[in-house]
Amino acid sequence: MERHIHGGDVYKNPVTHDFSINLNPLGMPEAAVSYLKQSVQTGCRGWEPYPDPECGRLTGMLGSLYGMDPACILCGNGAAELIYLLVQVRKPKKALVFAPAFYEYEHALKGVGCQVVYYPLSEADGFVPDMDGFAGSVDEAADMVFFCNPNNPTGVPVKEKQVRELAKACHRNHAFLVVDECFCEFLDHEEHYSAVPLTKANPEMAVLRAFTKTYAMAGLRLGYGICGDPEVWNAVRAVRQPWSVSLPAQEAGAAVLQSEESRRAYLESTRSLLRTERSFLAEGLERLGFTVYGGMANFLLFHAEEKPGVKNLYEACLERGILIRDCSNFHGLTGGFYRVCIRGRSENRYLLDKMGEILDEREEGQ
Amino acid sequence: MERHIHGGDVYKNPVTHDFSINLNPLGMPEAAVSYLKQSVQTGCRGWEPYPDPECGRLTGMLGSLYGMDPACILCGNGAAELIYLLVQVRKPKKALVFAPAFYEYEHALKGVGCQVVYYPLSEADGFVPDMDGFAGSVDEAADMVFFCNPNNPTGVPVKEKQVRELAKACHRNHAFLVVDECFCEFLDHEEHYSAVPLTKANPEMAVLRAFTKTYAMAGLRLGYGICGDPEVWNAVRAVRQPWSVSLPAQEAGAAVLQSEESRRAYLESTRSLLRTERSFLAEGLERLGFTVYGGMANFLLFHAEEKPGVKNLYEACLERGILIRDCSNFHGLTGGFYRVCIRGRSENRYLLDKMGEILDEREEGQ
Repeated sequence: MERHIHGGDVYKNPVTHDFSINLNPLGMPEAAVSYLKQSVQTGCRGWEPYPDPECGRLTGMLGSLYGMDPACILCGNGAAELIYLLVQVRKPKKALVFAPAFYEYEHALKGVGCQVVYYPLSEADGFVPDMDGFAGSVDEAADMVFFCNPNNPTGVPVKEKQVRELAKACHRNHAFLVVDECFCEFLDHEEHYSAVPLTKANPEMAVLRAFTKTYAMAGLRLGYGICGDPEVWNAVRAVRQPWSVSLPAQEAGAAVLQSEESRRAYLESTRSLLRTERSFLAEGLERLGFTVYGGMANFLLFHAEEKPGVKNLYEACLERGILIRDCSNFHGLTGGFYRVCIRGRSENRYLLDKMGEILDEREEGQ
Repeated sequence: MERHIHGGDVYKNPVTHDFSINLNPLGMPEAAVSYLKQSVQTGCRGWEPYPDPECGRLTGMLGSLYGMDPACILCGNGAAELIYLLVQVRKPKKALVFAPAFYEYEHALKGVGCQVVYYPLSEADGFVPDMDGFAGSVDEAADMVFFCNPNNPTGVPVKEKQVRELAKACHRNHAFLVVDECFCEFLDHEEHYSAVPLTKANPEMAVLRAFTKTYAMAGLRLGYGICGDPEVWNAVRAVRQPWSVSLPAQEAGAAVLQSEESRRAYLESTRSLLRTERSFLAEGLERLGFTVYGGMANFLLFHAEEKPGVKNLYEACLERGILIRDCSNFHGLTGGFYRVCIRGRSENRYLLDKMGEILDEREEGQ
């Protein structure tokens, strides 16, 4: 099943190096680790009660961070929970998504019987979206638009000005716009890209962000949505259980936000590491003969020529305990497309070395 | 908002003693605590990756425990997530629930626009349900039936034989039966009550159980459903995100199930403690002049005469840092009904002492 590949293959195979999941290469921030350590030292009794249904402390902190009314913010069990809930309450009949894009949009949409219209991104253009064309394709029949910035799996970001035009087109056609910014904080100058400031004037849009990726908390599950209209979140509350965000997730998230100075320092270190390692990994992949696309996030999309009768790169890596993301089942991509996350130098070098070995063996085998 | 009272009030008030949530009084089993301690000692890197979407290890262990095909079991973010998902996929037009019963059934049902028909439990009968009458009220128009055994907030259990008759009535009328057994493992001789064995022959029913309550893991969030028809769970998978059950919840749950000997010993200690403390607390509450109903679970429902112009028992307790469940907003109950969970001797005595003080002050105030 396609949907279970993301984050799931590691449970079915012996994997020593997982390059398939797009987490912060620095790992969980120290503040979160400290909180978790303190909690379990007392025998975990602090984790026995129900979590706060309102995620009150965390929502208040996020409100301060973004200068938003906390009523405009809803926390979720990862951003993924909010994707499904927004689809559930908006009940779209027709929705637009990029091809390729994160699989969960189309899965959530198809779950409510929605027609999914794919807007193709062109490999020849390096998967840089034609935003005028995309905005123009939003018509009166469209109820919902999913837009991931930077996009997954391409890593290509779009400037805020262009997102604003998309928001206008959505507003004109009463299509609810979901901007998924789960990877936005990995970008240099994220303020040039983020649509968060647009939410105040555009009640028919929501921006999703995730501690999951930004702070390497995928196992704990924590994300949030920002929407100018609190009624959108009230509609979501009417169809979901109150306790989906666990107590350790809420408290680890609050620990991360406790010191803005530490948080900023952590994100700056992250972006600095990514700048260096993105170049290192991209150049290395190119040297191996792969075509690398211009991703700016914490992962890279590349294409490897597949040879008939030879194990593909995913399988060959897996034999060596390395998990990469086979992107052939993304709508709009074909066999030969792969995505790897950017990690620390020694791990990135290990990946390149092993891929080099795989290619050498292929040569010898011919 | 009513729905947020359960497990939420503790975040809005200074509470030193929480008797409002129905968790195992022994606290989280040692095996779960050990797992959590070990995980954070390594810097929590083990909690960074995505959780297994299939909860494969846990589902396999539950399959062995119940002698069921693991395909018949679905794990959830608490049993609460599964309540909402079952309602979402079954889309009932008309559903039957007890009054009083756990509030989340009606909230989930109303979220999909379902008509909720309440089957009243009679105070005069000690809230013991007339199961023949309930089964008889399942008609062709009913699409779904929620039945909590033992019931919350009454604690009254119903024997398996009577549940079987209810299942037959549901089957005849094509109504999907959800048996919520979140408190079943607190009963002496739970095997006389549980509907799990009925699921094999009745594909149109699901039994829900929760680590949340049984193993005091409400903050971590873990529950599961058992259904004879794996297609029911496949329909649920089609409308939910893949990662709702966090990695620590899955692994702590698996740790609990690792040794069946330890698990049985823990549950036996739990039931032994509950037998003693249930009597102690019930007798104490009766001595204070309250009417106690014959609950057999890990909580007690009682009624206190309210006096006009005097703070009610909930408010008076809260002033002393004690949180009890005000049941006046349960459908079928009125002011004066309260629920308290059963805890250890010193805490139960503390509760009774403080309630005694409250009543003494009332006397003096007159």
